Amino acid sequence: MSPSLEFIDKVSNELPIKPVGAKVNGVPGVAAVELEGSDKHGVVLRYFRAYIADLCEQFKGGHPGSAMGMAAIGVALYKYVMKFSPKNGDYFNRDRFILSNGHACLWQYLFMHLVGVEEMTTEQLKSYHSSRTDSICPGHPEIENDGVEVTTGPLGQGVANAVGLAMATKHLGATYNRDGFEVVNNMTWVMIGDACLQEGVGLEAVSLAGHWKLNNLCIIYDNNNITCDGTADVANTEDINEKMKATGFNVIDVLDGHSNVSSIVHALLSARNSDRPTFINIRTVIGFGSLKAGNAATHGAALGADDIVQIKESFGLDPKEHFVLPKDVYSFFEDVAPRGKQLEADWSALINSYEQKYPELATEFKLRVAGKAPVDWKKFIPNKEDFPKEPTATRKSAGLVGNPLYENMANFLIGTADLTPSCNVAYSKKVDFQSPDLRTACNLNGDYTGRYIHYGIREHAMCAISNGLAAFNKGTFLPVTSSFFMFYLYAAPAVRMGALQGLQQIHIATHDSIGTGEDGPTHQPIALAALYRAMPNLLYIRPCDSEEVAGAFEVAIKATETPTIISLSRQALPQYPQSSREGVARGAYVFAEEDDFDVTLIGVGSEMVFAMQTRDLLREDFGIKARVVSFPCQRLFEQQPREYRQSVLKPQAGKPTVVIEAYAANGWERYADASISMRRFGKSLPSKSAYEYFKFEPRVMAPKIKYLVEEVKRDGIQILRGDFRDLNGKLGVKFEH
Amino acid sequence: MSPSLEFIDKVSNELPIKPVGAKVNGVPGVAAVELEGSDKHGVVLRYFRAYIADLCEQFKGGHPGSAMGMAAIGVALYKYVMKFSPKNGDYFNRDRFILSNGHACLWQYLFMHLVGVEEMTTEQLKSYHSSRTDSICPGHPEIENDGVEVTTGPLGQGVANAVGLAMATKHLGATYNRDGFEVVNNMTWVMIGDACLQEGVGLEAVSLAGHWKLNNLCIIYDNNNITCDGTADVANTEDINEKMKATGFNVIDVLDGHSNVSSIVHALLSARNSDRPTFINIRTVIGFGSLKAGNAATHGAALGADDIVQIKESFGLDPKEHFVLPKDVYSFFEDVAPRGKQLEADWSALINSYEQKYPELATEFKLRVAGKAPVDWKKFIPNKEDFPKEPTATRKSAGLVGNPLYENMANFLIGTADLTPSCNVAYSKKVDFQSPDLRTACNLNGDYTGRYIHYGIREHAMCAISNGLAAFNKGTFLPVTSSFFMFYLYAAPAVRMGALQGLQQIHIATHDSIGTGEDGPTHQPIALAALYRAMPNLLYIRPCDSEEVAGAFEVAIKATETPTIISLSRQALPQYPQSSREGVARGAYVFAEEDDFDVTLIGVGSEMVFAMQTRDLLREDFGIKARVVSFPCQRLFEQQPREYRQSVLKPQAGKPTVVIEAYAANGWERYADASISMRRFGKSLPSKSAYEYFKFEPRVMAPKIKYLVEEVKRDGIQILRGDFRDLNGKLGVKFEH
Repeated sequence: MSPSLEFIDKVSNELPIKPVGAKVNGVPGVAAVELEGSDKHGVVLRYFRAYIADLCEQFKGGHPGSAMGMAAIGVALYKYVMKFSPKNGDYFNRDRFILSNGHACLWQYLFMHLVGVEEMTTEQLKSYHSSRTDSICPGHPEIENDGVEVTTGPLGQGVANAVGLAMATKHLGATYNRDGFEVVNNMTWVMIGDACLQEGVGLEAVSLAGHWKLNNLCIIYDNNNITCDGTADVANTEDINEKMKATGFNVIDVLDGHSNVSSIVHALLSARNSDRPTFINIRTVIGFGSLKAGNAATHGAALGADDIVQIKESFGLDPKEHFVLPKDVYSFFEDVAPRGKQLEADWSALINSYEQKYPELATEFKLRVAGKAPVDWKKFIPNKEDFPKEPTATRKSAGLVGNPLYENMANFLIGTADLTPSCNVAYSKKVDFQSPDLRTACNLNGDYTGRYIHYGIREHAMCAISNGLAAFNKGTFLPVTSSFFMFYLYAAPAVRMGALQGLQQIHIATHDSIGTGEDGPTHQPIALAALYRAMPNLLYIRPCDSEEVAGAFEVAIKATETPTIISLSRQALPQYPQSSREGVARGAYVFAEEDDFDVTLIGVGSEMVFAMQTRDLLREDFGIKARVVSFPCQRLFEQQPREYRQSVLKPQAGKPTVVIEAYAANGWERYADASISMRRFGKSLPSKSAYEYFKFEPRVMAPKIKYLVEEVKRDGIQILRGDFRDLNGKLGVKFEH
Repeated sequence: MSPSLEFIDKVSNELPIKPVGAKVNGVPGVAAVELEGSDKHGVVLRYFRAYIADLCEQFKGGHPGSAMGMAAIGVALYKYVMKFSPKNGDYFNRDRFILSNGHACLWQYLFMHLVGVEEMTTEQLKSYHSSRTDSICPGHPEIENDGVEVTTGPLGQGVANAVGLAMATKHLGATYNRDGFEVVNNMTWVMIGDACLQEGVGLEAVSLAGHWKLNNLCIIYDNNNITCDGTADVANTEDINEKMKATGFNVIDVLDGHSNVSSIVHALLSARNSDRPTFINIRTVIGFGSLKAGNAATHGAALGADDIVQIKESFGLDPKEHFVLPKDVYSFFEDVAPRGKQLEADWSALINSYEQKYPELATEFKLRVAGKAPVDWKKFIPNKEDFPKEPTATRKSAGLVGNPLYENMANFLIGTADLTPSCNVAYSKKVDFQSPDLRTACNLNGDYTGRYIHYGIREHAMCAISNGLAAFNKGTFLPVTSSFFMFYLYAAPAVRMGALQGLQQIHIATHDSIGTGEDGPTHQPIALAALYRAMPNLLYIRPCDSEEVAGAFEVAIKATETPTIISLSRQALPQYPQSSREGVARGAYVFAEEDDFDVTLIGVGSEMVFAMQTRDLLREDFGIKARVVSFPCQRLFEQQPREYRQSVLKPQAGKPTVVIEAYAANGWERYADASISMRRFGKSLPSKSAYEYFKFEPRVMAPKIKYLVEEVKRDGIQILRGDFRDLNGKLGVKFEH
């Protein structure tokens, strides 16, 4: 597939590419292009590769191989094809570029330097792998730095992020573009190595890209056939081109990717002109120029001084000189920054006329560009008295709170990993995000204006794509994902990348404990909350009733730099008169106070009901006074002032504190002396029976707590120090499961 | 592709299948088969489907749709094609069957009942979704129950497990089979629904199955085109057949999978006769017979009494009767159990003659069958004095300890997710596990006798396949996996399934802290240890030097029902005279004692060095006496008697305990009052600089600890209760990242 002459005519105004109207490879009817300055490619490529080798050599580390191998691809992208503005990384309609093989970051840093990204000085380039704490050249690209769209490194994530970025463009374009006013129409380019389509998350994501016909997405495969273990075919011999075709991609082969910039440009232009997403399979040579070229040894280590002498000599450069980028190289790229400025100016002019023709639409669009929600969300959150009085599953409560938001807030994009009936995220009048082509082909509703996203059974891609949606432009989207809490373990690497990058999202995680019941231990999370409670910059909130669900949503919407998991029950839970959304915002709060208490019980989420029932039993059967604390979020609580924390927990009173939660106790030891918790995996039983089986029964718990209280009265609270009690646990048992 | 006449002749001795030597679909040269009793299929299918509907109806729940849709596939497998022994689920050379779409478990349970698995009584069948705690019919199949090879439910896992099971057969066959003595040659059949090849782990696994040409693997796709959200094409429109072909599979279409048992049998026989793994795409109708047939409503809910009346009437059954399986249905399957007994007898006879012809090989083989290691492992573990005296990275120590084991123990299967140079698992004289076909095609070494497995960049499939290897027959294999610790987050759902199923494995997890350095925050685990420390039936061991690495291996090898993660440093660590493998086995032990101490420091793994240095500084600069505890494994420690735990931690002395570890502190609060730990993600810096940046510097830590000691002296130890101190943390800071 080749770009048409008509298409080349169109882009030749914006890109330094001229149509020559001839045959390519002897095939008639396709367009060829002429590249300005193409006689200089060899010079640029030689200096580029030598510079990469020098950068790795200074600290004897880093990843030179791919960065050198991909040099010609970079020239094609940065000089000829990508529409971006080096002087303004935030230009809204810029092409998005993602380096999914993030270890090749030097390649990106050096091109950013050459095209004139101001922060990217040679001094900064040389800080790669140094001990400089202000380096903008970390070992993998990081979103905080200008010109980097998403943080990459964990392989496969970048491909999925790119799918999200391409969806964002499609959605905004379908929503705001009008005839003659393509206010959003950027391409998304994602560079991958051999790994990104071995990793499952990448494979899940490309299936969706093909399904959605994201023709604004182009995957550029640096096919050097080398991975850490040697040749890639030691573990991979599939026919990737056929596989990508079957997945719905336009597939283009480039056989010489190490020097033939023109053929790469031609392929990239084809991607711009495709009706499907494009996969360009470019054969390159890792460590091109090195004596170890084509060998895994060039992947993750410096090449060595001798080899670098050899490289420079074979390139006709002076081996005694280091870090050389002559004027010719800079001047080759000097048109890129002005071109970017022009793109920005053209876009601003377009927006001005758009505003005149479509004033209302433009007002909304400009709010979205500014990262602001088009309407105020607060009015859509129900008041406490609006909730049902009868016991209600918190997954249903999350529907009551979330659905009005989803319906009315154009910045919300709602997704599900094939659990629409279970997660209650399908809002009234929802429109599916789908390719309009599939309306007839598959009788599907939906188009690109849709905000309801069927991710299929692909939890990992869902959350990685969601990161891409959130990263498109800060605040333009608030992505929501949904699945069973247990399957956020599948998605965990992507959830973590969201937290690491400060990308606001709401993860609706239902069926969150052994209360999920009959599906059994495979579906009952025990240890997973420990991960998310320990994860930096993530809020794991486990509300106990509808009111606390409302509080969780309020917190999640306000946390503009932080993803939130709202953890919800499958089963109905009581509604409490004393529950409080303000309490949720503080992480924990007093739920039932007692003067002169004997013990504090911590209740959490669906197990709050047991804390409250046990409190009653302790009073009735044993005359023991138990106060109860509701504790939906550890992270929010730890940020409260010490005085507040002490007022909630009252640990100084010398009375024991017992947490009741059907998870592993890990992490609760910070706040409690003992737990009724899980030390084994769950069991397939109806919800109520599962709780009984694991002794979450007030009649069983109350005597244990009574015994603890008596022990503390007798021996003092200090006997519990260093001896946290799993009151459900059996000591000395060989590994249980 | 069709099985040859010759092949049909061969199998017809063992299966109730007769060659008729005619054309199939008019194509000459292929064999047709005649099925004994094929006139009874309709009867069996009708009663089967009605029974499934009844089972779901009694407790108004469960998954009837797929189980009904797949009925004809079950008849083909259980009656005609699968070689197994219903009376002996442990028959060694049985075909392995995995229900990867585990929610359809009733289908498997009912067929197990019909073929005569003794435990599977009608009473047990009716316990599905009941509150019976002794049910062998849980909501998803569980490995503990006879006839279930692996626990399934989390989608995609079963496909990967099946790849592992098929590899196990290939490896044992290549190692022990001799001409005329195919002592191991079973097939692996795996049933999947629409989800298993949407999930990344399934996609990773099939790429490997194709690469390894596992022609003893057959994936049976129950293609009903329905998922929870409606038609599967709401999220998936790729050409799955073409995709599987590109992945290296033999692909067969069956267009009528709801009644045409013969065509299914024919396809399954083709799989038995293929030179590649086989993918059979069978079109079925979910909830066949129901008014809601072909609709997602039949997937995860009972059909309702009215619909069941309708089903039975349309099937010509009596709607007033429930749970009916007439004698005809039982007699249809009555040849299966005797056939299984005959298979067992034939195999025993084969082993007897094998033993006479190859006595040494047979002795080893019988040990493997009995789940015993062929030689004693203890002699391969180095003594303390064998280790280098100079600082050594624990990933290197793991090579020193592991490589002799890997080389000499035929039960060890060593895998890596493309990190051979980093993880030090490549043992001397290793042979790769590869298809011998690839020797010429790709110039690869290796064959199926190989025990070194290149999984590619597929951490999740690596660990899920490893579960399959371990599940083949208890003790026959001890699989080892290896990657960076951070990427065991990608693999976490499979690591969890290994723990849940009690499958012994060793996960070699290197680069385990911010000490990994320049790769930066994406590669530096902070929260991940909290997950694995909380996970039931898993040992997360973080040794501080070579001797502790030896201890970790000893524990891992002895833990025959439990997987172990050995967590290792990239950077060199000191070797300690006092380190002890016996100490590792107890989880924690006194590393440096002090009479009349002021504070206890807990040192862990690569941060032990900071604990020891800080101890020196506290004495030198402040006259503070600090004792040090080495704490490689929380789970092992919590299983020690209280007296031992108290003797190590001495919490009763009223002196503070401080843990020093560059992870989130979550979980350490059980043993410590304060931490020097991580509350944010890491940073791309060289190892030493990264530690300094996050204040893991004795000169910074010592004064903080001094302050804590003084505070406790002044105000008593009780001031720390409920107020765990992150000594590196800043309180009141908005979410940091």
